[in-house]
Amino acid sequence: MFNKVCIIGCGLIGSSLARAIKENNLAKKVVSSNRSDYVNKKVIELKIVDDSGSDTKKMVKNSDLVVIATPLSSYASIISKIKDTLKDGSILTDVGSVKENTTNLIEKNLPNNISWIPSHPIAGTEESGPESGFSKLFQNRWCILTPSKKSKKKDINLLKIFWEKAGSKVDIMNTKKHDHILSITSHMPHLIAYNIVKTSLSIQKKQKSEIIKYSAGGLRDFTRIAASNPIMWRDIFIHNKKNTSEMIDKFIENLEDLKKAIESEDNQKLEKIFKKTKIIRKDIIQAGQDVKKPDFGRT
Amino acid sequence: MFNKVCIIGCGLIGSSLARAIKENNLAKKVVSSNRSDYVNKKVIELKIVDDSGSDTKKMVKNSDLVVIATPLSSYASIISKIKDTLKDGSILTDVGSVKENTTNLIEKNLPNNISWIPSHPIAGTEESGPESGFSKLFQNRWCILTPSKKSKKKDINLLKIFWEKAGSKVDIMNTKKHDHILSITSHMPHLIAYNIVKTSLSIQKKQKSEIIKYSAGGLRDFTRIAASNPIMWRDIFIHNKKNTSEMIDKFIENLEDLKKAIESEDNQKLEKIFKKTKIIRKDIIQAGQDVKKPDFGRT
Repeated sequence: MFNKVCIIGCGLIGSSLARAIKENNLAKKVVSSNRSDYVNKKVIELKIVDDSGSDTKKMVKNSDLVVIATPLSSYASIISKIKDTLKDGSILTDVGSVKENTTNLIEKNLPNNISWIPSHPIAGTEESGPESGFSKLFQNRWCILTPSKKSKKKDINLLKIFWEKAGSKVDIMNTKKHDHILSITSHMPHLIAYNIVKTSLSIQKKQKSEIIKYSAGGLRDFTRIAASNPIMWRDIFIHNKKNTSEMIDKFIENLEDLKKAIESEDNQKLEKIFKKTKIIRKDIIQAGQDVKKPDFGRT
Repeated sequence: MFNKVCIIGCGLIGSSLARAIKENNLAKKVVSSNRSDYVNKKVIELKIVDDSGSDTKKMVKNSDLVVIATPLSSYASIISKIKDTLKDGSILTDVGSVKENTTNLIEKNLPNNISWIPSHPIAGTEESGPESGFSKLFQNRWCILTPSKKSKKKDINLLKIFWEKAGSKVDIMNTKKHDHILSITSHMPHLIAYNIVKTSLSIQKKQKSEIIKYSAGGLRDFTRIAASNPIMWRDIFIHNKKNTSEMIDKFIENLEDLKKAIESEDNQKLEKIFKKTKIIRKDIIQAGQDVKKPDFGRT
C-alpha cells in the first residue's frame, strides 16, 4: 500500500502496528524513530522495523505515511520538528486516545499539502514497550478516524483500508463526539481503577500483604488496569480534562446515591440498580466486545 | 471425612462445593436444600448431589456438616428453621462474604452442642446458579475461617482440612478484621464496578450502542464484575455497611484529589500516583494471585 511508513514511538501500539504492517505487507519499508537508543537498537534486533534512529527528521524523510505513537504531551514538539520534512502529499496520522485539542493543534501547524488524519485504535494491554507488542493487537478491534480540515477524502479512504488490512474495523466521527464517548468507555474506567488501587494502598500500609493475598476477590482486576502506562494515561486525563471532570462529578453523585441506599438498607433500590447493570453485560457479549467465559482463579 | 453433608443453597458456590466434595470423596452422601423445585430437580439430574428438596429441616437431618450457601439476608430464617434439627456434635458453616453480624447472630441462636465455624472461600465468577459451578473453583484460592465462641477446636481443624482437600488454602482470623480487609479487596471493587456501569448507563441513553461498541477500551472489564449476582451483593453491602461507607468516603476523597490534579494539569503528581499503583500489580503476580499474562482483545 505504501512505499515507506515511519512510526514515531515504538511502544506497545507503535511496535504492534509495525508488526502488523510487515505481516500483512502494507509497506515496502517500515522505519521508526525513538528517543531511546535502547529502543532503536531493540526494534531492529527484533526485526520489527527495517531502520530506526533518534533523528526523527531523518527517519520521517520520504515517508508516505507517518504515524505518531507517542504520549499526547509530545505532539507539539514532534510537529515542530517534522512539519517541514514531511513528504508532499503524504499522510500523517497518530494513535492517540484524545482527539479534539491535538487535532486542532496539528491542523494549525501543518503545511497544506499534508493529509492530517487522526486515528485511534481502541486496542491495548496493560503492558508497555516494544517487546510487549504483537501483530494481532488490532484484530477485530475498532479504530476511530476523526478527520481534520486537512484530511483529503481519498486519503481518508486509503487510511481506512490500511487499518482494515491491519485487522481493525473502522469508524469515522468528529473529535468532540470521540472524546466524550471515550471518556465514558475508557478514560473513566482507567481513572477509577487507578483511584481504587490508590485508595487501597493509602488505607492499608500495615496490611499490604493481606490486601495482596486476598486480592482475587475483585481488586486484582483493577490492579491490572491500573498497571497501564503512567505517562500515557496522565496525558490522556489532562488532554480530556473537561470530559473527565464531568464524568468524575457524575460518578461521585451516583456513588453518594448508592451509599445512601446502603446506609438506609434500601434493599429494593439496590437490587434494581444491580439488576440493570447486569443486563448491559449481555449486550456487550452480543456485540462481540467480550466473550461469555467466566473469569475464575487464574493461577 | 463426613458421613453426610448438607448444602443449603446450590448456587455457584454451593454447587461447586458439592462437586468438590464428590470429586475428592469428602463425604459418603451429599444432599442439598433449595427453595426452588427447579434447582432441586436440576442438582439431582446433574448428579451434583445425592438428594435434594425444599424441606430444609428434612434435608439437614443427621448431617455431620451443614453449609449455608445462600444470600446473607436469608440466614436468620434458615437458622430458626434448622437449629433444633441439627445433629448433636455436628459442624455448621457458611460461605458468606461478611462475617461480623452473621457470626454473632448464629452464635446467639444455636444450641451449645453445635460447632458454628463461619467460612469464606474467596472464589467465584460473575455467573450464578448450579449450572455455573465447577469442582475446581476453590483450587489455590484462599478460604478464611472466622471462628465463633461456639467453634470447637478440633472441629476448626477438621473444617480446615476439609477446605484444603477441596483445593483451598486456609487462613484463620477474627470477624472484624475479615470484614475490614474484604471491604477493601472485594466489596469496594464490586461496588465501584456497579457504580461505573450505572454512571455510563445514566449518561448515555441515546448513545448506548456506541458505549457497547467501544467498551473494549476499559468499561468491558467492569461490566463483567457488575454482572455478579445482584441479591448476593446487595446483602454484602448492607451487612458490611459501616466498612463500605468508610471506604466510599475514602474513595471519593481520593477521586476529588485526582480531579484537582487533572484540572490543574499537575503532571508530576499524576505521574507519581500512576507509577505507584503500577507497582502493586507486580506484588500480586508474585503472590500468585494473578498471572502475568496481558489481557487483550478477547473476541
